[in-house]
Amino acid sequence: MKVQLDCFPCFLRQVVIALRLCTKDKELEERVIKSVLPEVERTDMSKSPAHTTTFIHRKIRQMLGTDPFREVKHEYNEHALGLYPSLMDRIKNSPDPLLTSARLAIAGNIIDFGIFSSVDIESTVERALNGPIEADDYPAFRKAVDASHDILYLADNAGEIVFDRMLIETLNGFGKCVTVAVKGSPVLNDATIEDAGQAGITGLCEVVDNGSDCIGTILDMTSKEFNRIFDNSGLVISKGQGNFETLMNERREKIFFLFQSKCDVVSRELGVPLKSMLLKEHGEKNPLKKGL
Amino acid sequence: MKVQLDCFPCFLRQVVIALRLCTKDKELEERVIKSVLPEVERTDMSKSPAHTTTFIHRKIRQMLGTDPFREVKHEYNEHALGLYPSLMDRIKNSPDPLLTSARLAIAGNIIDFGIFSSVDIESTVERALNGPIEADDYPAFRKAVDASHDILYLADNAGEIVFDRMLIETLNGFGKCVTVAVKGSPVLNDATIEDAGQAGITGLCEVVDNGSDCIGTILDMTSKEFNRIFDNSGLVISKGQGNFETLMNERREKIFFLFQSKCDVVSRELGVPLKSMLLKEHGEKNPLKKGL
Repeated sequence: MKVQLDCFPCFLRQVVIALRLCTKDKELEERVIKSVLPEVERTDMSKSPAHTTTFIHRKIRQMLGTDPFREVKHEYNEHALGLYPSLMDRIKNSPDPLLTSARLAIAGNIIDFGIFSSVDIESTVERALNGPIEADDYPAFRKAVDASHDILYLADNAGEIVFDRMLIETLNGFGKCVTVAVKGSPVLNDATIEDAGQAGITGLCEVVDNGSDCIGTILDMTSKEFNRIFDNSGLVISKGQGNFETLMNERREKIFFLFQSKCDVVSRELGVPLKSMLLKEHGEKNPLKKGL
Repeated sequence: MKVQLDCFPCFLRQVVIALRLCTKDKELEERVIKSVLPEVERTDMSKSPAHTTTFIHRKIRQMLGTDPFREVKHEYNEHALGLYPSLMDRIKNSPDPLLTSARLAIAGNIIDFGIFSSVDIESTVERALNGPIEADDYPAFRKAVDASHDILYLADNAGEIVFDRMLIETLNGFGKCVTVAVKGSPVLNDATIEDAGQAGITGLCEVVDNGSDCIGTILDMTSKEFNRIFDNSGLVISKGQGNFETLMNERREKIFFLFQSKCDVVSRELGVPLKSMLLKEHGEKNPLKKGL
């Protein structure tokens, strides 16, 4: 997906969100937001918005210190782990554990752990379990899972990664060999190897880092080792809008995107309402819209 | 009101709105939005957001040509003139024509003529006539009008200025001598002398231009003649959020602000819900919050 005009205000909105989480120092806020403007000016309109936000977040980290989100991410994981036992029970007792755990993995992407409250969580989980999936390729997903032994799972955020664990455990139960990829270094609230450990995933399957601090998965910037794993994967489960933005124009077999459409640009281009749940197939035989 | 962190994304959002109205040329869009970033970087945090947006809109006009909003403003005025006869009847038949015309003047500020439809207009007018005014200084406004002979009226947008005409005619009916100030040169969809003419105001009262192309009323940038009129006015009726942002820290007797709070920053600082209707007194004896 390429940068569009509407992305520009959103670049700065994301800086505001990041700053609100990390500091109350007004002078620092001003210095940071003004310092990212040259990064915004360098935006390459032929690339995904995630390219620009990657550079923006590098700048923010450089100015605020190492991983300003570390504490917040720890809290998100803790919150999510509190929900884990009862949600795993629901998966085990459901008629279709793969669908239920896929829906919960999308729920993990919907939940804004930054404004966590039990009420928000409960209603989001219920919506994710029972609400419509706007782009619903579940039958193809089920078939692809059945046909694959090795699955690459691209994680997105801290907190959410506990919900990913539920889907991974379900896939393990089907005898699948899942490799989970996390970020190579801290960026925003994205999950790293540390979060995978806290979420209890490192004991369940192989966890690799992608060697990159990018928003989403920018294959030009991820490690050779990660690219090798990605290229050899028969099935990729990709979580979150950042991974969708950066991978949807890659002509690879076979990716399923599980996420919520969180911005007008993505929603408009996909022709779905804002905040839709998506379980969307992408591959050589089913390419997503090319101009995006 | 001083610039706050949340204003930065909004600066770019306003550029997007302006560009959407004026061009479909993608390359021009990119050039314009990137060219305003240095203006955003020069933001003086001790000034109002309107200072930055003034420089931004100068840049946009410079790049897009003279007054890209001219046609759109003409349409807004035409739309509003279509409503004028029936709304004037409502004012004349109401138990308190000053209140009804003040509410309609606020309605003019609420209506987004850019997304005009008869349904939107009708519901907005009904809400403006019957809904709550969050900061309601109408009794003081009535008293100030009764006590004043000369009134300075600061207009805001095209389209809206037809609604202003209804309040001005009502004030004329009370024997008041109203001077209407419009922008000295085109900026955004703000009313200029041309719009005052189209709205039928030039025949009703004196119309002056403020000698400036600023968003709101930045007294350092308006003409000496306008400043003289402003200083000598016993009562100022100020329309719109831009005028509120730029005049609320001026220690002048006596200003009433009639507007809708259109952004989170202003709403939060005033302690009112977003999109509230306000008829707010400001003066030496009733200063608004100073830190704003």
